[in-house]
Amino acid sequence: MKPSIPRGTCDFHSEHVFRRRFLIKCLQSQFEKFGFSPIETPSFENLSTLIGKYGKEGDSLIFKILNSGNFFKNIQKRTSNVQLWNSKNILKEISNKGLRYDLTVPLVRFVSMNYSKLVFPFKRYQIQPVWRADRPQKGRFREFYQCDADVIGSDSLNVELDLILLYDAVFSELKLPVTIHINNRKILLGIAEIAKIEKQILDFTIALDKLEKIGEQQVIEEMISKGISKKSIELLRPIFQLNHNNKKTLNIIKKLLSVSEIGKNGIRELEYLFNSIESIGLKTSSIQLNCTLARGLNYYTGSIFEVKAKNIEISSIGGGGRYDKLTELFNLKGVSGVGISFGLDRIDLVMEELQLFQNFGVYLRNDFLFVNYGENESLIALKIMQKLRKIGKKCELYPKQVKLNKQFKYAKQKNYENMIFLGENEIKNYEIKIKNLSSRELKTYNWNKEFEINF
Amino acid sequence: MKPSIPRGTCDFHSEHVFRRRFLIKCLQSQFEKFGFSPIETPSFENLSTLIGKYGKEGDSLIFKILNSGNFFKNIQKRTSNVQLWNSKNILKEISNKGLRYDLTVPLVRFVSMNYSKLVFPFKRYQIQPVWRADRPQKGRFREFYQCDADVIGSDSLNVELDLILLYDAVFSELKLPVTIHINNRKILLGIAEIAKIEKQILDFTIALDKLEKIGEQQVIEEMISKGISKKSIELLRPIFQLNHNNKKTLNIIKKLLSVSEIGKNGIRELEYLFNSIESIGLKTSSIQLNCTLARGLNYYTGSIFEVKAKNIEISSIGGGGRYDKLTELFNLKGVSGVGISFGLDRIDLVMEELQLFQNFGVYLRNDFLFVNYGENESLIALKIMQKLRKIGKKCELYPKQVKLNKQFKYAKQKNYENMIFLGENEIKNYEIKIKNLSSRELKTYNWNKEFEINF
Repeated sequence: MKPSIPRGTCDFHSEHVFRRRFLIKCLQSQFEKFGFSPIETPSFENLSTLIGKYGKEGDSLIFKILNSGNFFKNIQKRTSNVQLWNSKNILKEISNKGLRYDLTVPLVRFVSMNYSKLVFPFKRYQIQPVWRADRPQKGRFREFYQCDADVIGSDSLNVELDLILLYDAVFSELKLPVTIHINNRKILLGIAEIAKIEKQILDFTIALDKLEKIGEQQVIEEMISKGISKKSIELLRPIFQLNHNNKKTLNIIKKLLSVSEIGKNGIRELEYLFNSIESIGLKTSSIQLNCTLARGLNYYTGSIFEVKAKNIEISSIGGGGRYDKLTELFNLKGVSGVGISFGLDRIDLVMEELQLFQNFGVYLRNDFLFVNYGENESLIALKIMQKLRKIGKKCELYPKQVKLNKQFKYAKQKNYENMIFLGENEIKNYEIKIKNLSSRELKTYNWNKEFEINF
Repeated sequence: MKPSIPRGTCDFHSEHVFRRRFLIKCLQSQFEKFGFSPIETPSFENLSTLIGKYGKEGDSLIFKILNSGNFFKNIQKRTSNVQLWNSKNILKEISNKGLRYDLTVPLVRFVSMNYSKLVFPFKRYQIQPVWRADRPQKGRFREFYQCDADVIGSDSLNVELDLILLYDAVFSELKLPVTIHINNRKILLGIAEIAKIEKQILDFTIALDKLEKIGEQQVIEEMISKGISKKSIELLRPIFQLNHNNKKTLNIIKKLLSVSEIGKNGIRELEYLFNSIESIGLKTSSIQLNCTLARGLNYYTGSIFEVKAKNIEISSIGGGGRYDKLTELFNLKGVSGVGISFGLDRIDLVMEELQLFQNFGVYLRNDFLFVNYGENESLIALKIMQKLRKIGKKCELYPKQVKLNKQFKYAKQKNYENMIFLGENEIKNYEIKIKNLSSRELKTYNWNKEFEINF
């Protein structure tokens, strides 16, 4: 049998773990500077918690866990005709748990279950893996880490503001320039309202999103092919003039949506954010009003965000938004939530490609490899190592007495800075020889009866 | 719908996350001091990787993941008679992945897949959750973290020695006194050989393990009830004399096993370990030869370890051993492995009950909560906060302009050390008022045009 791992997953070697740990530490420290506290939730949730929150496609991408024990017994008891069963109705009989699909739904479930114990507005961050049975491709894995900061229980736009500042703080610390794309679901609803395309609003935005790539004529053709009437397209023509100038875009949309109540609400929220950001100023990030931004997840109702790295072609490395109704599904009425997510694996991918990790001391270096000279010498070596470890040194005794060049090769491969020689003669004289593997310098030191080296 | 979480899982609130993070940091730092490097593997593995490695009971406790898409279609195509199917044969058709059951089997799979890229002896540590569909009880969860250090590719007993020193180093740093129980599978095999109870060796050790609790007579009765002959029991009578004195125990077993080759090998290995440990000395841990220690996992072939906390009644908080044959199942011939595991969740439970976390600064403290005085004041507050966060301070603006006592309560509940007042008047005079919430002292500071406070 040739061993392998499931499609869409990967192993992380040592350097990769150190890179990810560095990113996680950076995120933890920024989250805490912004007043967020960590929680963790179980890897699997009841399917009743997950199903129906991510749209139909989302539901099908949830990894389901088979009930344990004799899960098929009850089905056999009830029928002998296998034709009565299909993947959909049998699923309910044999599975009641699923792997976490994102961190937002588990958060809302957590808040609902612990409502009386929490301090509101509840600001939590969470750094854990999620799983999606998606088709794997570059930068899209079936297991990947999300790093989320959410605020539950405040409808203040200051929360959105703080989350934008948080994005900027993290990516500035990582020296990774990004553009934060912002939109508001209310604007999309307003557009749908005035053009009477409530049911086709997603098709509309997907087509519009291609404007730069394929040009106005082809975008209109795609819209018509999706059943959007020429009249609706005519009504929305001003949107085709949108460009990268936030102020101009805001003015065009403002005029267009002046007859839609919900649309005007969306405009007001966006204006507050853009004006505040302009006054405070971002460190390194750009901010971009993007009226075609829709975000796939079902539950967003207000502001939506998506972060893209500059200077590299890759899908978003972060995203989020406000959700007013999701909480109601968990018995929380009138409790609004808003949050952002950082895609750890993609951030790692981007920083690796842009060679940004070189700015930081990310990787492990080891201190002392003790050459193995046999049983008696090893005991002395171990006693000295106990003392070295106590003062924080990373050290190791080569496990067997083999040829010196084999031990030397091992020391080099494992990034040891020094090799230590402690043979019969050295022990007799309470000496120890330390060879620096970069400078090749060999120095002799003494050690005392407490096995401490006199550096 | 009242939300809940699956049986045997739990949510971790903020304090709990900080406790676990503290433990993980301690483990990471000790692992690295002992020359181990981290890897991470996917949460789920192919079932072909997992099945058959943990014994029959283990196999049934693996959480299986349903294949995605229309998993039932092929079954329907092939038969209309549901009676032909049962949980066992249908499983192969509808599931080919399972959640990680431990970290050892994924490690061996990893080594097999990456053999040419790794440095041997390969020393890796791994801190990740595992899942078992076990009956939940105190200290036994269905999702729990294992923290493992393993060495693959060396049969030297110095590796076992180093792992014992590692156990001692970690639990000494945590100020948690433990007993490290040691045995060797070869001793158990020797016992089985001389008494011809090869097939009943597990029943024998399980019964013998109760000696202290239920006395010799009842232990013998249990053995007989399991089909162990009186003659075998008579042959093994010296084992009933074993006690907590390692040297005496070693002598008794040595005499008993003098006619078993494999038994003598086990004795030699144990003697080397005990003599070396005696010479080096442990910091705070005790070491205990325990000839009835068997460990449930199928794959051990040499030394086995189990760690128990002193002063508290709880099952083991760590365990491990040497496995010579497991590697062969993954095409690695003559490659021996040995490793130990730390049970993070149980260590946390024990340290919490023994109130040991108080020895360390584990929990989060926040610095500045800014009172919200409205839109204009908030903008200035946010600008000052940007500067404070830059110098490492944890701060937050209360998101809405509500009554002061509500904001005050929030600051107290979230462990803020200071509350900041920055209203219209203060802003006019470039002033800021900081109230220390412990001393209740109120001080006024100035800030400059770069929004930096002049502390």
